[in-house]
Amino acid sequence: MRMYDIIHKKREGGELSGEEIRFFVQGFTRGEIPDYQASALMMAIFFQGMTRRETGDLTMEMAHSGDMVDLSSIPGVKVDKHSTGGVGDKTSLILGPIAAACGVKIAKMSGRGLGHTGGTVDKLESIPGFRTAIPREEFFQIVRETGLSIIGQSGNLCPADKKLYALRDVTATVESLPLIASSIMSKKIAAGADAILLDVKVGSGAFMKTREDSRALAREMVRIGAQVGRRTVALITDMDMPLGRCVGNALEVQEACQVLSGRGDPRLRELCLELSANMVYLGGQASTLEEARGLASQAVASGKALEKFRDMVEAQGADGSCVLQPEKLPLSQVCLEVSAPETGYLTRLNAEECGLAAVELGAGRETKDSPIDYGAGIVLLKNKGDAVAKGEPIALLYAQREDLCHRGRERFLSALKVGQEAPVMGPLILERIEEV
Amino acid sequence: MRMYDIIHKKREGGELSGEEIRFFVQGFTRGEIPDYQASALMMAIFFQGMTRRETGDLTMEMAHSGDMVDLSSIPGVKVDKHSTGGVGDKTSLILGPIAAACGVKIAKMSGRGLGHTGGTVDKLESIPGFRTAIPREEFFQIVRETGLSIIGQSGNLCPADKKLYALRDVTATVESLPLIASSIMSKKIAAGADAILLDVKVGSGAFMKTREDSRALAREMVRIGAQVGRRTVALITDMDMPLGRCVGNALEVQEACQVLSGRGDPRLRELCLELSANMVYLGGQASTLEEARGLASQAVASGKALEKFRDMVEAQGADGSCVLQPEKLPLSQVCLEVSAPETGYLTRLNAEECGLAAVELGAGRETKDSPIDYGAGIVLLKNKGDAVAKGEPIALLYAQREDLCHRGRERFLSALKVGQEAPVMGPLILERIEEV
Repeated sequence: MRMYDIIHKKREGGELSGEEIRFFVQGFTRGEIPDYQASALMMAIFFQGMTRRETGDLTMEMAHSGDMVDLSSIPGVKVDKHSTGGVGDKTSLILGPIAAACGVKIAKMSGRGLGHTGGTVDKLESIPGFRTAIPREEFFQIVRETGLSIIGQSGNLCPADKKLYALRDVTATVESLPLIASSIMSKKIAAGADAILLDVKVGSGAFMKTREDSRALAREMVRIGAQVGRRTVALITDMDMPLGRCVGNALEVQEACQVLSGRGDPRLRELCLELSANMVYLGGQASTLEEARGLASQAVASGKALEKFRDMVEAQGADGSCVLQPEKLPLSQVCLEVSAPETGYLTRLNAEECGLAAVELGAGRETKDSPIDYGAGIVLLKNKGDAVAKGEPIALLYAQREDLCHRGRERFLSALKVGQEAPVMGPLILERIEEV
Repeated sequence: MRMYDIIHKKREGGELSGEEIRFFVQGFTRGEIPDYQASALMMAIFFQGMTRRETGDLTMEMAHSGDMVDLSSIPGVKVDKHSTGGVGDKTSLILGPIAAACGVKIAKMSGRGLGHTGGTVDKLESIPGFRTAIPREEFFQIVRETGLSIIGQSGNLCPADKKLYALRDVTATVESLPLIASSIMSKKIAAGADAILLDVKVGSGAFMKTREDSRALAREMVRIGAQVGRRTVALITDMDMPLGRCVGNALEVQEACQVLSGRGDPRLRELCLELSANMVYLGGQASTLEEARGLASQAVASGKALEKFRDMVEAQGADGSCVLQPEKLPLSQVCLEVSAPETGYLTRLNAEECGLAAVELGAGRETKDSPIDYGAGIVLLKNKGDAVAKGEPIALLYAQREDLCHRGRERFLSALKVGQEAPVMGPLILERIEEV
């Protein structure tokens, strides 16, 4: 088998065999196939696409290119959830406890934030003492005992995907649906998921800016799930404005605790209930989605979900009382109030720019190695659609220093617009995609 | 400027600016742009093509990536000729002398053969003592004095093209018209041509197998010529059967001398007269093609063309009497007669397979470093379309050893077919393309 022939075949629109895909993924991972042939193949795939079978094979080959997490020692259906990334997206902190309270096993590996989007691991680490680097066996043990554990990615997971993504990133071959979809799905499968819930974001703060693009990506991933035998559901949800009222690590943990207590921002609560209902459904704890919604609501109302979160926080080494009294979590010392520049309605609150304002405040990373300030961030006192009066406080900004607050305010103000007519608010959950 | 943006722009179907093309060619030649970005760009060009302006810019940037031969010290219009390669194609040995006899200046750099196609430099070197490696100034001096010199490629000509072609060759990005065309044209321009005649071959022995493909390539190159200010004409000519009666280095020199003496294979003579008339026309020695045809015929009939060849052979260090008595050129010692396997008509004589038979005999190179036997090759006693009787001699094979002759015969027999009906012979010169 020759890499030249594989590139040529794809270039001419042919369908690569499972053997050819294996030859490429294994050879590339071992460094036997040079980058210049891999990038030519990626560009040919950009133009010619991949069939469902090819995308499934690519996903599984990448998943098997490194360690495969074996969750079989944990009884029950292990459901994983993936969000394509957003601003103020603390849903993992909320869904995990709700689903676990309903009997689903959640053994989740999460990532750190980069650029305008946050990461679940950073958020959890804002709880003093919380350990995200936990040996494999202890991780399994926590899941068996509490039903829930969230840790940082560890081990050599999907090295093929890591290497290929780095190459695509510098050769203008990122924006290919089968390549994006197989990259995401391979990591979930290597992490041991039996079933996968995808939260595909759309809007200014999301990777996918249009409804069509996000739908196409969701469909592609759901198809891969079906192809490789992992039950998969995707929700397409709005990320045009930040999710909830808080952006920043400790602030988002506080907001998660509020939602788990049955309070907090209604849009965020709606999304969390719908996502967790889908996890309960995928985890086989309910036979209809309707039933799953009931179980999820009950888990919050009964306080069981909040308890699950506390159990996990304690099992991972931190003080569980933070969950019941989230105001204990330390915030940055300087707080600046932002007031409305005019009277009217908040007609725009661009998610990406809010995320970048949070980075200015110190809450996010500009590069992989930047330090972050867990206590920094934004609290939205007013959200998109709200009426505001000139001079009225609309947000609080937290940072370590005054100058950071001022820089953050400048960026934050560029994210919003005040108009004279109340904006039409689009729906939060746009679509649910499941392959039957 | 970033290479990423250049790849992305082309991927999206954009037109690269002259500056962007320069950035790529110069950076790639200096090794600053990595192969994996260059191959991604090549694949994007494969799918998106290039505009006439882009192709012209790419051609000129590649031409200027190394030495540019300056022929300005030779008075008159310097015309170069390029053939896309074929089997038995000894036309350069014939056209040069005819055009020079008509007053055109021919300062030509030629290549060596590889695979089933031969090379002009190998053919000339079969004349004992003939020097193809000549210092630049002496080369110019021979052209000034005799009007004609053909040498091997020397110096650092088109390093960008050399490096890019090697990369395309292993990334399945060779078959792109603007890339093929700019590669050919850049070398002609770097070699100093004022005007260019292209012999674009089509058929089993050619790089382009179909009429449409060869026409598209011819058009692309003629367009580049117009774009960069080099008068360019292309003829599309048949390469389905070998050109003329001889395949092999010394054998082809002998055949060239025959044609220059007004004898030899009629199809070969027809092609040579038409090609040389176009060179005379491009060289400004005739105001119409009709007039140029007359001058070319006269140059042969008067013996002046043969004299020019002799002058060049002598100027380049060999015995000029070989040209008048070509039978003096040494052939390989073993000669095997091939006879017709059946009675009927020669309905097929596949050029590529004849070329490969000649390689088996020792006349060509399998790899760049293979040695060759100048005296080996094939003399066709019968050609496609001829009637043959079973057992009648149809070809002579020359080689150093019996076993090579037998291997060559096997290959040669697979190139031909004897049928019961005379085949329809297509025209030799299919089209002439000139941008007005």
